[in-house]
Amino acid sequence: MESIMLPVDKKRVADLIAGLAKFGKTDAGITRLAYTSTDKAAQLWLLKQIEYLNLEVREDVLGNLFLRRPGLDPAVPPVACGSHLDTVIHGGAYDGMCGVVGALEALHMLTDETLRRSIEVIVFRAEESSRFGFATMGSKLITGKERPEKFADAGRKDDITFKEAVKEWGGNLEDYQKALLQPGAYKCFAEMHIEQGKVLEETKHQIGIVHNIAAPTRFKLHIKGMADHSGATPMGFRKDALVSAAKMILAVETAAIREKEHGTVGTVGIVEVDPGSINVVPGGVTLWVDVRGVEPESIQRTLKEIRQAAQGTARTDGITIEEEMLTSDSPVALDAAMAAQSEEICREQNKSFLHMNSGAGHDAMHMPGICPTTMLFIPCKGGISHNPAEFAENEDICAGIEVMAEILKREAQ
Amino acid sequence: MESIMLPVDKKRVADLIAGLAKFGKTDAGITRLAYTSTDKAAQLWLLKQIEYLNLEVREDVLGNLFLRRPGLDPAVPPVACGSHLDTVIHGGAYDGMCGVVGALEALHMLTDETLRRSIEVIVFRAEESSRFGFATMGSKLITGKERPEKFADAGRKDDITFKEAVKEWGGNLEDYQKALLQPGAYKCFAEMHIEQGKVLEETKHQIGIVHNIAAPTRFKLHIKGMADHSGATPMGFRKDALVSAAKMILAVETAAIREKEHGTVGTVGIVEVDPGSINVVPGGVTLWVDVRGVEPESIQRTLKEIRQAAQGTARTDGITIEEEMLTSDSPVALDAAMAAQSEEICREQNKSFLHMNSGAGHDAMHMPGICPTTMLFIPCKGGISHNPAEFAENEDICAGIEVMAEILKREAQ
Repeated sequence: MESIMLPVDKKRVADLIAGLAKFGKTDAGITRLAYTSTDKAAQLWLLKQIEYLNLEVREDVLGNLFLRRPGLDPAVPPVACGSHLDTVIHGGAYDGMCGVVGALEALHMLTDETLRRSIEVIVFRAEESSRFGFATMGSKLITGKERPEKFADAGRKDDITFKEAVKEWGGNLEDYQKALLQPGAYKCFAEMHIEQGKVLEETKHQIGIVHNIAAPTRFKLHIKGMADHSGATPMGFRKDALVSAAKMILAVETAAIREKEHGTVGTVGIVEVDPGSINVVPGGVTLWVDVRGVEPESIQRTLKEIRQAAQGTARTDGITIEEEMLTSDSPVALDAAMAAQSEEICREQNKSFLHMNSGAGHDAMHMPGICPTTMLFIPCKGGISHNPAEFAENEDICAGIEVMAEILKREAQ
Repeated sequence: MESIMLPVDKKRVADLIAGLAKFGKTDAGITRLAYTSTDKAAQLWLLKQIEYLNLEVREDVLGNLFLRRPGLDPAVPPVACGSHLDTVIHGGAYDGMCGVVGALEALHMLTDETLRRSIEVIVFRAEESSRFGFATMGSKLITGKERPEKFADAGRKDDITFKEAVKEWGGNLEDYQKALLQPGAYKCFAEMHIEQGKVLEETKHQIGIVHNIAAPTRFKLHIKGMADHSGATPMGFRKDALVSAAKMILAVETAAIREKEHGTVGTVGIVEVDPGSINVVPGGVTLWVDVRGVEPESIQRTLKEIRQAAQGTARTDGITIEEEMLTSDSPVALDAAMAAQSEEICREQNKSFLHMNSGAGHDAMHMPGICPTTMLFIPCKGGISHNPAEFAENEDICAGIEVMAEILKREAQ
């Protein structure tokens, strides 16, 4: 069967992304928090732009949006793809939007194809944690990964709660069971997303084929020494918590580098010094540590090494180090057969590709319980995301759309 | 000549210190900022308590207080002693107050002595930097160490300026030349103070005889790396400013320990991480460094080693480190003959003593340009100061007063 796929319309892709970027635009990037009127306006604008696709529009009680292109056989599970439209505070125009716009443009490319299965573009609600403190809320709830009680009362003190926001949007959190996806509800799921790292850019590849999504283990290290006058306390009389903290920062780095070939990373992102004064030897320091990886054994080895370093440092320095666990999630393996299919398509389309893992979390990480799931990454400038400087070349977005269209076509046949 | 010195009145010493502690008392320690109505009330209360000493009371145009016990010969320079009555925010009852109360009690002990020289107790105004951001303002100005223009407009944004505060107190900053002390204005100056360190306590000595007062060199190290997604950025692709900062924290420690025998200390007291988020590799870190010592060569060696470490770290880690100098003062040598006299007195009085240096700054550090100057330290619990937990045993305070009284007696003869 000869392909009758339409070419990707680069101008429309650019126009849709630029159009969405106007919703929530500020002097410091785009702020389009989930369930806000800005989020709603962006979605309504987008629906207006794509009327020519004649998709069936449906929203579940949580505000997740489903746009269906009907197939010949309504009895078989549809193929799904999609991403999200919300942003962080002072975010960019590409994180999430590339995946939604790309999925819609892929449907356009399939206009003249006759396909057995329906294809649904899912716009997940509340992927970013910026409004309610939890990420991927829509996908977590419809896949049954979390129960709504966990999120119901979440919200900043000057804002409404998640439950209220769902209601304001037009949904109803108490009816969430109506939104639950059953295993097998879809034939498969594919998400395209900017990498949010600079590996594709620096290694000059067009497509990242994602095999695993890392899960963060986050914990605090509370280091207690003794606060003293910084002038009147000789070096031998000190228990400087910051000196011990510095050793632990380097220990986190060393432990992660030792697991580099397994893709595990370790980061200290926050340092709180008590009292934090120029003339006082620090008495206490809290480090916020984030360890991520795709191999549970590698993550465990990293944590073990950090804990051993903490014990050693506490003993050597005569201070105490306590660990406070914040989150400890499991990494997610995506579908190997779909990844192989993506490689095949890249080869056929003459696109450079790299097999890789995702360090960041995505809606796709909750879908493997429902159906085989895959992700495609496209390069983003400098690896920057969650930032007004976030940028992806239209050429790169369109290359990803070409691969996505072919995935959808093959899966829907 | 047989001594007719009165014994130290331990109860009065305790009562005066406890009485002063009521001025500015809060649930979180004592807050008695310089030139405030609380400062004035404390001073007026103290003057009332010591009326029995029949001292001549004089205040200069800066608010420094002079309490004179006239000697037989008004033509010769008086002997001076003293300290300060202001506290930091949430401070204690001993820092400064021991020196003022101790000097007054020493005068009481000398009641029946006939002495050639007058003795003056000086209560310096604004020793603590808590209100205007500068320390030892009163002593700096009357010794000509600083000109008033430097301080005139200093002040927090919700407070009046230094110049206004002097005026509110009843002085006049513009007339400051009337307050200037000329070299030779005093025969000598002696200040008693809590150690603000724990060397005397841990080594079990009653009296610290101070030879040098350290001067702080304070600077910021601005470390610039590259902010990146903490999940999506593999270890080899990072320029983590906090990892480089950890190396610099340890380098400051190492450089100071190498100069330990010279008494130099080095402290990183403040760490500012940008952006300071659990899911972002730190892109920038600012460290606030404090290096102090009493030997200029040792301080310079320490700074040189820190700078070399900064250059090495910048090169190795591919980041940049910029130094921003904040203050760079010179250490002060006190009078060797007066220190020897203090040792002699301690031996005669059977008091344990330790020759030492002061890591903290004091009003006494500005007096060597006027007259031979000495300092006595007494132990304070746990070395804690500038804190509600600041505490000195009355026994230790009174031991210091006995030495101080003998110093004043010998110098005033």
